[in-house]
Amino acid sequence: MQYEHRLQVRYGETDQMGVVHHANYLLYFEEARTKFLAHLGEPYGELEKQGIALPVRKVDLRFRSPAHYEDELVVMVRVDRITPASVRFAYSIEREDDGVLIATGSTELACIDMRSTPRKARVLPDSITRLFH
Amino acid sequence: MQYEHRLQVRYGETDQMGVVHHANYLLYFEEARTKFLAHLGEPYGELEKQGIALPVRKVDLRFRSPAHYEDELVVMVRVDRITPASVRFAYSIEREDDGVLIATGSTELACIDMRSTPRKARVLPDSITRLFH
Amino acid sequence: MQYEHRLQVRYGETDQMGVVHHANYLLYFEEARTKFLAHLGEPYGELEKQGIALPVRKVDLRFRSPAHYEDELVVMVRVDRITPASVRFAYSIEREDDGVLIATGSTELACIDMRSTPRKARVLPDSITRLFH
Amino acid sequence: MQYEHRLQVRYGETDQMGVVHHANYLLYFEEARTKFLAHLGEPYGELEKQGIALPVRKVDLRFRSPAHYEDELVVMVRVDRITPASVRFAYSIEREDDGVLIATGSTELACIDMRSTPRKARVLPDSITRLFH
Repeated sequence: MQYEHRLQVRYGETDQMGVVHHANYLLYFEEARTKFLAHLGEPYGELEKQGIALPVRKVDLRFRSPAHYEDELVVMVRVDRITPASVRFAYSIEREDDGVLIATGSTELACIDMRSTPRKARVLPDSITRLFH
Repeated sequence: MQYEHRLQVRYGETDQMGVVHHANYLLYFEEARTKFLAHLGEPYGELEKQGIALPVRKVDLRFRSPAHYEDELVVMVRVDRITPASVRFAYSIEREDDGVLIATGSTELACIDMRSTPRKARVLPDSITRLFH
Repeated sequence: MQYEHRLQVRYGETDQMGVVHHANYLLYFEEARTKFLAHLGEPYGELEKQGIALPVRKVDLRFRSPAHYEDELVVMVRVDRITPASVRFAYSIEREDDGVLIATGSTELACIDMRSTPRKARVLPDSITRLFH
Repeated sequence: MQYEHRLQVRYGETDQMGVVHHANYLLYFEEARTKFLAHLGEPYGELEKQGIALPVRKVDLRFRSPAHYEDELVVMVRVDRITPASVRFAYSIEREDDGVLIATGSTELACIDMRSTPRKARVLPDSITRLFH
């Protein structure tokens, strides 16, 4: 199962090289992941309201071709690995216009109990695991 | 003439107060302005390709109510003042869901010739002024 | 009483115009304000630990000259107005090298009780008001 | 050869989880890299003035422990691999206070000729390669 999210590059996301600054791709990944979970009926915000958070603990990013201001990008996201206490999302970004591959990557998310001090790792809630099995 | 742009708050745009960090509203304004100009047939990116840029030279921002992660926001934008060498956009942001007013503000843009060194102020190109007269 | 904070422009803070993107000035103001309060013995983080927050409710910004990547900037900050329930900081940014004025502005902060739901306005804590009287 | 850069977490760099948002670590890495090159007598800005840029083409990031607002961080940076046309920087971030390891990672930079259209890969300039051999 794969989800496609469309977005358009903001001016403030470019840098003086005239292309999207690399750190912004993590925001694009995050936005796609958010939309994906909401699309599956499990908005991430609801999880946090229950005291459960999914912090990013590992990132992999590879830039294939630069993206520019006003480019329409398609972010494809899917889950490529799930364990009892972590879930990894894989991404691929293409420019809508010409289909050029812009970036690929993955983010691995841990699961924590926000109500513990200090915050402790916990297993993923069933509401999440059942989505990807 | 007013243009409405819809966007959804990204996780990375929140801060530890649990609300959208105030600096991000300038990105929301900018995105709405970009979509407005494109909607009018004058994408801002084209202007820069001709060597003309519209840097922000003045900002006014007033926060009325906090916005949260995943909120759908409506950014209303219009031009409220235009002179031969500057244009001011006025904005108002509401939450889609409940119509609560989130923020209001304005940004005044100058016009510069990017091919001069140092960059010199110049009059707005006709393609822009004719849109708002 | 005025406080001076020095910082250097990050690459990711520039945009394709080749200058610092305007939204970043709010982060520079914020950093200078943070250092100012810490210098006065009242780190802002401590305030939040007590359940008190100072959200920005009004911003004024005026850009005088562009700043560039690697520029060393001096942010001067002072309190120019304090009421029982709000405090306004005024800022002026110059480039260290040549003393050129880059930007001026102000941010007005309200005071809220983070433990109330919804969050309610409250008077500034004495620890803050006594600093500026 | 390793370089240490110190920085303090900005408020706007936190997110609603109450910790530094993961995308900001790429800005911390970048800032440390900038200071490292300047310290070695080869400020990156000079390189771009000669028409040479070093875009990030690969990122690896691993989060070990969260960082918080106002934390003083030490970013350690070194070059761990250099080829004729790329250089990889490795990073490790610790909190100054208690020495806790916050994040580790690497960024691999390609080298491009900014004056070619489209921009072409090229070998690293001697001024950079001689620093790390």
